[in-house]
Amino acid sequence: MTFNKTLQKCIRERKSLVCVGLDVVPDRFPAKLRNEKDPVFTFNKAIIDATCDYVAAYKPNLAFYEALGTYGLEALQKTVEYLPEGIIKIGDAKRGDIGSTAEKYAQALFSMGFDAVTVNPYLGLDSVSPFINDPEKGVFVLCLTSNPSSKDFQYITYKSMELYKIVAEKAAEWNKNGNIGLVVGATHPEELAAVRSIANDLPFLIPGIGAQGGDLEASVKAGAGKTGDLAVINSSRGIIYASKEDDFAEAAGVAAKKLRDDINRVRGL
Amino acid sequence: MTFNKTLQKCIRERKSLVCVGLDVVPDRFPAKLRNEKDPVFTFNKAIIDATCDYVAAYKPNLAFYEALGTYGLEALQKTVEYLPEGIIKIGDAKRGDIGSTAEKYAQALFSMGFDAVTVNPYLGLDSVSPFINDPEKGVFVLCLTSNPSSKDFQYITYKSMELYKIVAEKAAEWNKNGNIGLVVGATHPEELAAVRSIANDLPFLIPGIGAQGGDLEASVKAGAGKTGDLAVINSSRGIIYASKEDDFAEAAGVAAKKLRDDINRVRGL
Repeated sequence: MTFNKTLQKCIRERKSLVCVGLDVVPDRFPAKLRNEKDPVFTFNKAIIDATCDYVAAYKPNLAFYEALGTYGLEALQKTVEYLPEGIIKIGDAKRGDIGSTAEKYAQALFSMGFDAVTVNPYLGLDSVSPFINDPEKGVFVLCLTSNPSSKDFQYITYKSMELYKIVAEKAAEWNKNGNIGLVVGATHPEELAAVRSIANDLPFLIPGIGAQGGDLEASVKAGAGKTGDLAVINSSRGIIYASKEDDFAEAAGVAAKKLRDDINRVRGL
Repeated sequence: MTFNKTLQKCIRERKSLVCVGLDVVPDRFPAKLRNEKDPVFTFNKAIIDATCDYVAAYKPNLAFYEALGTYGLEALQKTVEYLPEGIIKIGDAKRGDIGSTAEKYAQALFSMGFDAVTVNPYLGLDSVSPFINDPEKGVFVLCLTSNPSSKDFQYITYKSMELYKIVAEKAAEWNKNGNIGLVVGATHPEELAAVRSIANDLPFLIPGIGAQGGDLEASVKAGAGKTGDLAVINSSRGIIYASKEDDFAEAAGVAAKKLRDDINRVRGL
């Protein structure tokens, strides 16, 4: 089964579009946890246990683990291995390099156990190819990002089409193996609808709700596609740091359930 | 002293524009080395010892180390620590993420000991900012890459200006701290000259000679600037795999010296 089909099946079966971003910052862990021997994995394990009934995907962002050195990468590996079967594992690494180097990045990320990764489109198709050779593994190509500076280059217009739309069109064209999706930020709900009309069949990974202020209802309506199951909506800080106290895991579970339910209400479920 | 000044000083003092790309692929090491306990560091150490008299910079590409798991990253850390004082250490990671995440990438890379890193411009200024806050640390922003698919998006034209030129113009504008350079591939010598005319004062990191077929003479003429010391020319495979036999280090030294001399001939030195 192709990655995109697997993702859609997972979303349907789990009745959830929620993706939890495991962006670990030990300074934000409860004090008790910071003194543990393996604080990052202990934190993630508690978050996963408390949230897994409500989610379709988990998305660790590599930056947060790399910032902790080799310990961080070991904790990431343990976390990926701990993630329950049947939930999609997205490695948010935003890599992009020339073909021969991209092969090494694909090897590094998929050998960790991720089902899909995020990639940067700036270097074009040969930088994406090594990630999409295996139809069972997926990529989410950055299209329109959720940050304020997304306007610097992503809105540059050629023949009435902004760069992010050109990226969406190309990604749809590249999707021969049924395993390409797009990253489109919830901070741009109107543009989300425009991208959806260009890339009808591609799943979206939608970051930017919560701390970044994206519009949840508009994003679900614009992004989830006709069948309502073509997107995962990511929340990182809003879930994993819902509480900084010892009840952090319980609070994360409540936040993940609430996000799932809020989204499903918009989907009419 | 700002990063760009430090780089220029290094190039002048060492009379070399050569950057050696430490893109380790253990399968390409001599058989004897592959059985060593610490093959990657042993290989790099030998390459560094044999080439350091002829170079201005070393540039390990993170992908090659990440593909080897935590061992690779430990070997990278040892390699960076082993690099001689006074030679520029560039971490080729091509990272790009929203501001709060980019901070973590900057922390991860600079804490390893790199003087400069490569970054992807797709997410705009706030994704680059965390890397340029410290004037002594530098970034090379991807402008026009050396791979065939660079044409997919980098040539998109807005108001008669291709995206890569818009990136060059923006990067020059962002260079308030004197620590921004550009990556411009040797596979596009004419465009290199155009970028040089847009970003007069920015140092260039020029990959793509050797295995990728870029034009050395044209690249040096177009890229090194009026003073002839505003670029480093990278060679990876052409130097570190100059021989696959036990004389690999000696052969790398010969190749690095030859590249330095070929470049200096074009510079009229």
